Amino acid sequence: MAFTDSSTTLAEIKTRVLDFARERDWEQFHAPKNLSMALAAEAGELMEHFLWATPEASRTIAQDAVKIQKIEEELADVVIYALEFANMTGIDVAAAIEKKMAANAAKYPVEKSKGRSDKYTEL
Amino acid sequence: MAFTDSSTTLAEIKTRVLDFARERDWEQFHAPKNLSMALAAEAGELMEHFLWATPEASRTIAQDAVKIQKIEEELADVVIYALEFANMTGIDVAAAIEKKMAANAAKYPVEKSKGRSDKYTEL
Amino acid sequence: MAFTDSSTTLAEIKTRVLDFARERDWEQFHAPKNLSMALAAEAGELMEHFLWATPEASRTIAQDAVKIQKIEEELADVVIYALEFANMTGIDVAAAIEKKMAANAAKYPVEKSKGRSDKYTEL
Amino acid sequence: MAFTDSSTTLAEIKTRVLDFARERDWEQFHAPKNLSMALAAEAGELMEHFLWATPEASRTIAQDAVKIQKIEEELADVVIYALEFANMTGIDVAAAIEKKMAANAAKYPVEKSKGRSDKYTEL
Repeated sequence: MAFTDSSTTLAEIKTRVLDFARERDWEQFHAPKNLSMALAAEAGELMEHFLWATPEASRTIAQDAVKIQKIEEELADVVIYALEFANMTGIDVAAAIEKKMAANAAKYPVEKSKGRSDKYTEL
Repeated sequence: MAFTDSSTTLAEIKTRVLDFARERDWEQFHAPKNLSMALAAEAGELMEHFLWATPEASRTIAQDAVKIQKIEEELADVVIYALEFANMTGIDVAAAIEKKMAANAAKYPVEKSKGRSDKYTEL
Repeated sequence: MAFTDSSTTLAEIKTRVLDFARERDWEQFHAPKNLSMALAAEAGELMEHFLWATPEASRTIAQDAVKIQKIEEELADVVIYALEFANMTGIDVAAAIEKKMAANAAKYPVEKSKGRSDKYTEL
Repeated sequence: MAFTDSSTTLAEIKTRVLDFARERDWEQFHAPKNLSMALAAEAGELMEHFLWATPEASRTIAQDAVKIQKIEEELADVVIYALEFANMTGIDVAAAIEKKMAANAAKYPVEKSKGRSDKYTEL
């Protein structure tokens, strides 16, 4: 069955990514250090689409039929490396996100942070 | 129900992340440009745990009971921003990953890339 | 004599940075891989000051008397790592910049690129 | 006179970089936010040369006659953006580096940090 956000679990993607690496005997290269670098490098490539645009203009760029293809590829690379990092370190990503969002909710209570982009230390 | 990789879909996390932003009226700040920056900045924080370690030593760092807590938080931030980026741009992340992995499989056939870390252009 | 941009050469800063590393026996950690990571991580910290601001607002942030102190530190870290990278790889940074700017001038002729932020491939 | 590290001051390169931007009417795009992104993206490209190599192997990569050409270009881009960032924000980079290195010397006294890559908080 094809992958879609509405039907695919994190674990299914993690397994696919891990199988890909194992078939190529690439786990030896997938140290956390190396994967964190690859992730950051791909995040840099994603940014390159938006360097000189205003934030508002970046919304339009992301709707461009040609550009969105490249943007999707960069985002896919980012998440692939993030999930392979999780594979190599034994992190449950969904659980980590739930925990982090609970911490974020405590740092950014709705009444204090509504409509404001300030860091929690400055609210 | 608590989030876990084995039971949680991408869409469920995307919805949680989007609801968090909407409750705080933060969609106005979540332009693709800004989210790509936040993602790259968090990827940088993840890397900081491994700057001076060898790749092998980075595997040990990631098993340290104290450090893994921080590492999990940085990884969670990375994936949160990646999924909010997908929310704001209408990308189906699981589908994009499947497509990108098919392209990767064509660039890195098992027989040519097995045990090698070379870029496909140098295989 | 104190360092200032108007009187200090790249070589003088490179020597200072190299001496600092040698006194601590840190050259063993200063492999190009590690320095490129440290550089990217510091670049990420520099970005964090501007994540949610518009480009125009970021000009104001950089004039804030308190924030500019932190921003200066991040920028210093970036250039320190860039120069130590040059130390470890034998790169003459000033010569490399001159060469790169000549290439940039050819890619971005004034008449074509004036007032435009497009990539040279789209001019 | 040609630029070389031994004879060129930071101010001379800053002026060259600023003139390049002004001739093209690019200062409008050179908000600190945008320059910090461009800097981080170029740092990401520099890293890409070393993703899967060990730190030791990265020293060899940097001596490869072909690869060093590309590496020099990425490093040049990093420093160009760092200096243009300094132009736009009024930072004296050499002075900032001197100040930062004094702070680093206090955080990393020779006797405590010699031969160790630990963060100062863990010395």
